[in-house]
Amino acid sequence: MPLISRRGKDAYTSPIRHLGPYAEEAKRNGKKVYHLNIGNPDIQTPAAALAKVREAATVEKIVPYSPSKGFTSYRKKLVGYYKRFGADLSYEDIIVTNGASEGILFSMFSCLDAGDEVIIPEPFYAIYNAFSYVSGVKLVAITSYIETGYALPDPSEFERYITPRTKALFICNPNNPTGCVYSEKELRQLGDIVKKHDLFLFVDEVYREFSYEEDFFSVLKLKDIQDHVVVIDSISKRFSACGARVGALVSKNRGILESVNKYAEFRLSPPHFGQILAEATLDVDASYIENVKEEYIRRRDYLIDRLDKMEDVICKKPKGAFYFLAKLPIDNSVKFCKWLLTDFDFKGKTVMLAPASGFYATPGLGTQEVRLAYVLKIEDLKIAMDCLEVAIKSYPGRMPIQQNEDSQQAFAY
Amino acid sequence: MPLISRRGKDAYTSPIRHLGPYAEEAKRNGKKVYHLNIGNPDIQTPAAALAKVREAATVEKIVPYSPSKGFTSYRKKLVGYYKRFGADLSYEDIIVTNGASEGILFSMFSCLDAGDEVIIPEPFYAIYNAFSYVSGVKLVAITSYIETGYALPDPSEFERYITPRTKALFICNPNNPTGCVYSEKELRQLGDIVKKHDLFLFVDEVYREFSYEEDFFSVLKLKDIQDHVVVIDSISKRFSACGARVGALVSKNRGILESVNKYAEFRLSPPHFGQILAEATLDVDASYIENVKEEYIRRRDYLIDRLDKMEDVICKKPKGAFYFLAKLPIDNSVKFCKWLLTDFDFKGKTVMLAPASGFYATPGLGTQEVRLAYVLKIEDLKIAMDCLEVAIKSYPGRMPIQQNEDSQQAFAY
Repeated sequence: MPLISRRGKDAYTSPIRHLGPYAEEAKRNGKKVYHLNIGNPDIQTPAAALAKVREAATVEKIVPYSPSKGFTSYRKKLVGYYKRFGADLSYEDIIVTNGASEGILFSMFSCLDAGDEVIIPEPFYAIYNAFSYVSGVKLVAITSYIETGYALPDPSEFERYITPRTKALFICNPNNPTGCVYSEKELRQLGDIVKKHDLFLFVDEVYREFSYEEDFFSVLKLKDIQDHVVVIDSISKRFSACGARVGALVSKNRGILESVNKYAEFRLSPPHFGQILAEATLDVDASYIENVKEEYIRRRDYLIDRLDKMEDVICKKPKGAFYFLAKLPIDNSVKFCKWLLTDFDFKGKTVMLAPASGFYATPGLGTQEVRLAYVLKIEDLKIAMDCLEVAIKSYPGRMPIQQNEDSQQAFAY
Repeated sequence: MPLISRRGKDAYTSPIRHLGPYAEEAKRNGKKVYHLNIGNPDIQTPAAALAKVREAATVEKIVPYSPSKGFTSYRKKLVGYYKRFGADLSYEDIIVTNGASEGILFSMFSCLDAGDEVIIPEPFYAIYNAFSYVSGVKLVAITSYIETGYALPDPSEFERYITPRTKALFICNPNNPTGCVYSEKELRQLGDIVKKHDLFLFVDEVYREFSYEEDFFSVLKLKDIQDHVVVIDSISKRFSACGARVGALVSKNRGILESVNKYAEFRLSPPHFGQILAEATLDVDASYIENVKEEYIRRRDYLIDRLDKMEDVICKKPKGAFYFLAKLPIDNSVKFCKWLLTDFDFKGKTVMLAPASGFYATPGLGTQEVRLAYVLKIEDLKIAMDCLEVAIKSYPGRMPIQQNEDSQQAFAY
């Protein structure tokens, strides 16, 4: 039998999805699993958008390729959407992608060669690791800490990490997994750095709509650095349409767009029905998002309240997205999350969490942290928290919360 | 402004799609363009399958991620489908992909490291070049010739090209762009080679249903080499659903499946509605495919007949898929195909073809060849052929058909 490749064997494993088989096994054994491990919301997709899919499947007789860059009509409508966030775009600055995932991959391929370095605050969305692996790009992480609410490291910190191989800074705003929302001031500071050092600035803005304490400030608003900026977007989260697989890559840099277009042509086109849904979401009444936001705020507040009442659990209230990290009195978050599925149940139920170690590039970090996604209704979150409360007490690998040594330094800045 | 990457700048350009902007321009100028350049059929998608999409968009309230490997229900049903072609599979041998494109990319990543070599008969589907570029894999081409109907080179030819870096053979059966269908005997011979030299055998079978002269023989039937085999599949062509973006990767090699699964997890999931459509196609009456086949046979016969009557045009009747190559009395197929869009029209109409040079790895080949896809109804093909007939006569770069020097040797085998 021929041997598979080294990059096949060593490929990055998703810490969010690789516990999936244990969850499947638990379900087969009759256990009810509450999924706080993945951002797959139970919020309803806008009915009016689903109606457009229904209509298309009624009227259309063929399901053809779309242009590689996506429906032109959709791209044109997106211009108006981004304008609401202060962006001055032409439809040609927008390429429709298979979810944000593909947008990230195409950004890396188009802007970075193997061996190039990207500076990113950690913890970060685990799957960025996968794309850096595939593209041979090195993610250089600047650690942020739970004790400071994972505040963006001081811009001077970013500069300290710049080497001749550095080609980009990369942030997720609002942040998955920390729930941080970065301010206009912070974005301007990052903008100054990318200008000064001639770097790209990748910003994953898929949670743009979910800023709970203040108005969201999009990097697209910073006119003077648009040649440096690539924004990654997706309808998955804001319209609870993860399965549509429709995202977008936005840039005003012609070179990037030309390259991304070539990569887009390889995979022929984004999905037809997903694009129909996506285009229809742009006509959805603003009250939809307002209601969803209110619901997420209720869920967030409920979870934070429950965790605050648990002994030896640390977490801070997140300001955006629908995730946050909690620090638990456990030996190892991967073991703990697996144990929740294989060994634990409370009245026939359990909760699935994402071990945070996968969200760090620095080995050894995140071993006591887990990511929670508040994507289920409060009734379900209640049961999930009941499970977690009992689980923490009965987990055999219980151990005291460890203080991050470096976080003391972080406080000193 | 920061510079984009080398691999962004040098990325492979699709010879099928990169003339797109000229076609758009022609249309804006009021010219009607007949697209024989791309396999985007005008055949109707099965109505019963579209009805399932309609139903899903009515009943379902959320569009969630599917499992990374695809709907389990769909994978289970596919087992029965492949059984019709003599395959003995479990649903775990099947991973749903975003079209065949992604299946090819994941196969390359999982089986091959950068620098590894894959032997492939040329001309081949141009986009394989793109995936080899992205993955750093070298495609080593064995030339086949129009004079012999692009017959599969003798298996001894494949062995001549094997080096210590060779990891796989790669064929497309039925073949895009040549329309060849390979025989059981040929597949067994390739099977013997991959066994003897411990190589992988990638077979792109997306045109499986379209074998017009004889029963199609799937490589999945060769029990003794299944550890070596990766089959790439897609519903795009057989159900005229290119925009669904649903393919599959099939293998019995556990190592490959584990690796492909990791890559599949990166991009989270295949599209929701596409999978609903795909699953529904498995219940479509067999008469659908029979009717489509008959229609393609009529179209093929019409095109071949028209081309046979044109002076200085060489082509052979293809046995499968819905493409073939024709050799024309032109100086350069890229220039000719562009000229058809920019400078030529016949009664306000023109035809778009794919220049075949992009289907060869060997520089200089295919300069007089174009690929035609018989994906339009005969009424449209008629106009397209009227255009081509006039165009060949009036093209300023007209020059005599060149005999392939090597093809003389090919005849001698």
